[in-house]
Amino acid sequence: MSLINETHSPALKSWVEQANRPGSDFPIQNLPFGRYRPMGTDEDFKIGVAIGDQILSLQGTGLIDSPDMNALMALDSTTRLELRRAISRGLAHGSEQQQAWSTLLINQSAAEMAAPCRIGDYTDFYTGIHHAMSVGKLFRPDQPLMPNYKWMPIGYHGRSSSIRVSGQTFRRPRGQTKTPDAAQPTFGPSRRLDYELELGYFVGRGNDLGRPVSIEDAENHLFGVTLLNDWSARDIQAWEYQPLGPFLSKNFATTVSPWLITTEALAPFRAPLTRPDGDPQPLPYLDAARNRKEGAFDITLEVLILTERMVGSGLPPQRLTLGNAGSAAYWTAAQLVTHHTVNGCNLQPGDLLGSGTLSGPAANEAGSLLELTEGGRQPVVLANGEQRTFLEDGDTLILRGWCERPGAVRIGLGEVRGTVLA
Amino acid sequence: MSLINETHSPALKSWVEQANRPGSDFPIQNLPFGRYRPMGTDEDFKIGVAIGDQILSLQGTGLIDSPDMNALMALDSTTRLELRRAISRGLAHGSEQQQAWSTLLINQSAAEMAAPCRIGDYTDFYTGIHHAMSVGKLFRPDQPLMPNYKWMPIGYHGRSSSIRVSGQTFRRPRGQTKTPDAAQPTFGPSRRLDYELELGYFVGRGNDLGRPVSIEDAENHLFGVTLLNDWSARDIQAWEYQPLGPFLSKNFATTVSPWLITTEALAPFRAPLTRPDGDPQPLPYLDAARNRKEGAFDITLEVLILTERMVGSGLPPQRLTLGNAGSAAYWTAAQLVTHHTVNGCNLQPGDLLGSGTLSGPAANEAGSLLELTEGGRQPVVLANGEQRTFLEDGDTLILRGWCERPGAVRIGLGEVRGTVLA
Repeated sequence: MSLINETHSPALKSWVEQANRPGSDFPIQNLPFGRYRPMGTDEDFKIGVAIGDQILSLQGTGLIDSPDMNALMALDSTTRLELRRAISRGLAHGSEQQQAWSTLLINQSAAEMAAPCRIGDYTDFYTGIHHAMSVGKLFRPDQPLMPNYKWMPIGYHGRSSSIRVSGQTFRRPRGQTKTPDAAQPTFGPSRRLDYELELGYFVGRGNDLGRPVSIEDAENHLFGVTLLNDWSARDIQAWEYQPLGPFLSKNFATTVSPWLITTEALAPFRAPLTRPDGDPQPLPYLDAARNRKEGAFDITLEVLILTERMVGSGLPPQRLTLGNAGSAAYWTAAQLVTHHTVNGCNLQPGDLLGSGTLSGPAANEAGSLLELTEGGRQPVVLANGEQRTFLEDGDTLILRGWCERPGAVRIGLGEVRGTVLA
Repeated sequence: MSLINETHSPALKSWVEQANRPGSDFPIQNLPFGRYRPMGTDEDFKIGVAIGDQILSLQGTGLIDSPDMNALMALDSTTRLELRRAISRGLAHGSEQQQAWSTLLINQSAAEMAAPCRIGDYTDFYTGIHHAMSVGKLFRPDQPLMPNYKWMPIGYHGRSSSIRVSGQTFRRPRGQTKTPDAAQPTFGPSRRLDYELELGYFVGRGNDLGRPVSIEDAENHLFGVTLLNDWSARDIQAWEYQPLGPFLSKNFATTVSPWLITTEALAPFRAPLTRPDGDPQPLPYLDAARNRKEGAFDITLEVLILTERMVGSGLPPQRLTLGNAGSAAYWTAAQLVTHHTVNGCNLQPGDLLGSGTLSGPAANEAGSLLELTEGGRQPVVLANGEQRTFLEDGDTLILRGWCERPGAVRIGLGEVRGTVLA
């Protein structure tokens, strides 16, 4: 069946007029889920749907009866699609629900958002091949890309407890670092603090321990997508990462955007997975016709920086990167699900799979400062004259994402912001 | 203050007579916490205290009012000590509570145990230096021990969702493996399935994101200890682990023993941390007088195997390993807490820190088959003539641990069992 249906029709408009403005992240074709409460209160967070610049209380509509996002994420595909249709009809021009539902709206600027769900386990992958190549060159000039890279999605377990929603501020991490020529390590604040531009794939329905998810079924276990900033301390990473991988260089903070953009909303923006000629084909357990044809996401990704001095001068954020998720990722989200579970490992509703840094092939598509500055050797010069090799205290990073295609209404992923403190 | 008090007195006996028998894992000096329910029911799990061969319902005593183990683990040290004293007095010979509490007992053989708490994040360390050295030789003959090993506790994030309590059975994991001379990887069941003998250190009180725990304070954040089997597929590990560390080779199953042996119970069995002469001293943030003097745990550890054929012949499990945690670990649990949080990472009540494989210096103290068989080259020959290089389908592994010292009553950690299915 085609997942593109009347909920994607460009003719569809909402009675929430702001949602119909061109450029809105949250037209009626999007309908992402998030958790919110009125700002300044200590109410429990509720499930809401973003529509234009408003949030609709989903419990208020009576369409769900629990504030537990993880329970909503565990729904089967058919029920999810029904829920989407019901929300779409209720928010559409001429809806019978308009009068009742208009009392269920709160302005997004008056809401505080939480992380979109309870994240049990967080796995970070490494699907951005251009990133893997660039970083590999810096860490291991003799062997930038490991022999396993084109055979399996490389990933590692991350830290759930330090994941926060957009707006996260965190102190510059301290730790051990060692320069190659030093006799011993020293302890102090990281001097090579960086961001990583990633997508966060959220698991919907889980699988039982011991029951792998086939590549044909994997899409049914994906709930939605957010933006993800995998903050990284490069100097701590270089000293600690062998032989068991990154640890304290990553687990001090990870920031996600608040809105779960569902796979239903993203249906018109799927793209083929392309592998360069001569690259090995995936082993059969990672290969399926549908995955090859439309396993990738055609999402435009942008990174902006806003320094303390820019804020002081009233300057807007400045773009560092503009790229596309589809051309950056060597493995699809479905392949991540299948590979993760092929040994029997169980995924649970709300689990998070990071895509890894989605750098494109061009220099200005790089998703980290490590790449943009060639390992800190070539500073980025900002419009106000400031230079950056790595992040300075007071820097705010903003990741944005959106989908645009002829014949489809633009949908946005919103943004994720985070700020480094001293 | 000394943590050794009247709750450890060898003179102390319980009215639960079985607890007073020599060799009992759970005398009144132990009092570990676990979660249980009557076998064959679907009741909610409750918090119990092991005493001899019985379990005391802790909620029944009125000493706690919630079945949430994580909440109990979050208590401050003073409240925890008060709780321990109250349980000890109630279970002691001549206690006024004997009549009332005797109705709160259930036989351990009539109870089903759960994992002791909700494990938010699981981190596995690598503190066994003899293990690190032996395994390093197999994976990297030119550089068995990485230059960072003696400077920081090496660790990585593990998978929480697949942690189960003793009695876990799991299917042999499948995955990609590649022999060094093969042109490409193949997919199939792991042929080098192994166990790892570890301790699980459970976090009690947590720390806020951005607030490191000092080495002086770290013991106050430790709640207790279990046995832990970190099942490992060596052939999958060898192919996947670079550059981001172990992933599918570990996350298909991890088994813990059901009883949280508290740090209060272990107080008489602390030992100095010893470093060979000439090794670097820890950096100041990882160093404290108390940690040097009594940071280690003097716990005897044993591994036994029970094959399907042994079961068929009515043979008992056969010992593979006997060693000691104190002499195997290069870093203490307190150092793990401090290192883990030094960058601001937050630990939460119930989080699990694996010690890493605790192999002793002698060959028969090795905590994995990888080491016992020299990488699969020298099979272990069992008493019934069976040979093992790695685990076969139907093999059950049993880890046991206990503490014995002159002048103290022996306390046990119980055991953790797990079985490989086809």
